[in-house]
Amino acid sequence: MIHAVRWARGRLEILDQRLLPGREHFLVCRTVDQVVRAIKTLAVRGAPLLGVTGAYAMALARDRRAAARKLIASRPTAVNLRWAVERALRAPDPLEEARRIHAEEIERCEAIARHGAPLVRGKAAITICNTGALATGGIGTAFGVLLRGKARVYALETRPLRQGARLTMWEARKSGLEACLIADGAAAAVIREKRIRAAVVGADRIARNGDAANKIGTFGLAVLCREFGVPFYVAAPVSTIDLACPDGPSIPIEERSPRELSDRFPAYNPAFDVTPARYITAFITDRGIIKPREIKSCR
Amino acid sequence: MIHAVRWARGRLEILDQRLLPGREHFLVCRTVDQVVRAIKTLAVRGAPLLGVTGAYAMALARDRRAAARKLIASRPTAVNLRWAVERALRAPDPLEEARRIHAEEIERCEAIARHGAPLVRGKAAITICNTGALATGGIGTAFGVLLRGKARVYALETRPLRQGARLTMWEARKSGLEACLIADGAAAAVIREKRIRAAVVGADRIARNGDAANKIGTFGLAVLCREFGVPFYVAAPVSTIDLACPDGPSIPIEERSPRELSDRFPAYNPAFDVTPARYITAFITDRGIIKPREIKSCR
Repeated sequence: MIHAVRWARGRLEILDQRLLPGREHFLVCRTVDQVVRAIKTLAVRGAPLLGVTGAYAMALARDRRAAARKLIASRPTAVNLRWAVERALRAPDPLEEARRIHAEEIERCEAIARHGAPLVRGKAAITICNTGALATGGIGTAFGVLLRGKARVYALETRPLRQGARLTMWEARKSGLEACLIADGAAAAVIREKRIRAAVVGADRIARNGDAANKIGTFGLAVLCREFGVPFYVAAPVSTIDLACPDGPSIPIEERSPRELSDRFPAYNPAFDVTPARYITAFITDRGIIKPREIKSCR
Repeated sequence: MIHAVRWARGRLEILDQRLLPGREHFLVCRTVDQVVRAIKTLAVRGAPLLGVTGAYAMALARDRRAAARKLIASRPTAVNLRWAVERALRAPDPLEEARRIHAEEIERCEAIARHGAPLVRGKAAITICNTGALATGGIGTAFGVLLRGKARVYALETRPLRQGARLTMWEARKSGLEACLIADGAAAAVIREKRIRAAVVGADRIARNGDAANKIGTFGLAVLCREFGVPFYVAAPVSTIDLACPDGPSIPIEERSPRELSDRFPAYNPAFDVTPARYITAFITDRGIIKPREIKSCR
């Protein structure tokens, strides 16, 4: 069992994902600012895990309102972070609430995997970024579906930070999932040559109209899947749905430092892209399979 | 003026592209085997430049037939290499022939750029890999078109060896071309957001039916361009056309070491993909603009 974050002796310990797969090191956070820094530097990432992390961080806060503001601002695209932090803010005991959120996240992952596994059972499938324990605190969203479905997975490297190469491949080895790494540019060739039967990806935010924001590269993968007639599934808890957000263009997209791509040349480095609803075959959620047009009546 | 290879005092000097952009170092080759190693390790790459390099290497050979075999086998996808080496093999003086091939390559690039520049004049355009002086020995194929057309270029990083990030961006800075680096996965978002009006890419081999092999990632880019209604141009000298090769599936695709992607996990690492003719708007060649269906009556 992989612990991506854990509460121990009044401190929040965060597995530093920047050092994986080479080294398993926990950052020990005693203050909210330390957690904010861990979030901003991507030591911890993944929409549902950010929610769990933010909730635990509220148990470290002296000024809970100020802490909530800082935590929510640390990753503007991640709607779960806002949702979980606000829940901890309202709760009488933030630590108890954080533990509840964590337990719910674990159960949510299992529910997503139960619904999604039959869609990928034994098939060759493609995925992007990391959506496993390191992203959720449970067995994962897309990763959990692929794991429980015993899919044969092609994992996109996911530049610039290589979460697919470093994290998904590491989790696959730890959990016995058959996985093969490919360059992001190899997606089209692999879908054509390897008889890919499904794409399963995560989501950072799902708008009311069914548009979904996720790691940069997801939209391109969706276009390829449509071209090749491959079903494109977005696996996410319904907590990722933001009914206050009407559509993809309304989702704020975080732009990260060009230096993640080059130390000497100009670069444009958006961290996410938006996949329009029409490219999405279905959402695999903890409440079952949902079509994009059904998102608006969800939650 | 960038010298990617140069003949000096009876030796072939090859600019080691693996060290760029950090360091400009020439490998001094006195034997054919040294050139073969430079080709295999990607110290020198790019279809037309490989032809120039292979021809010069023939001037180093004692046994010219054995040398030709070794050189041709060193990069099986690059048809120009075979073509140039065979020309040097038949010529009475291989060095003189190599110099002629080099001069022709320079003129070919200028001709391609003359034909292609009006298609991209002042527009935002996207490209992959490196197709400039470092790939051709002249101003380049796709790069030359973008340079002479004064396009505003988005350059795909081009994993795993990052020829876009390292070589195209370096050449752009040296030659005053406006260029911005993006991750391979960002292509779809950039085409949508930045109003990309053209994609211009190179080719390693063009089959009789108009299918074209190029750096892995090219096919995916072509699919995105079709989806967004963006013209997709392949810039290459007609020497890249292999009329003996009926179609894309007949083009041998080199598979490279998984270790280029990961030092610890299984990976699949094809170096090229094939873009079917139906995704290609036109070929920009030294003989003018050619439609895919016209390729078979070319050369």
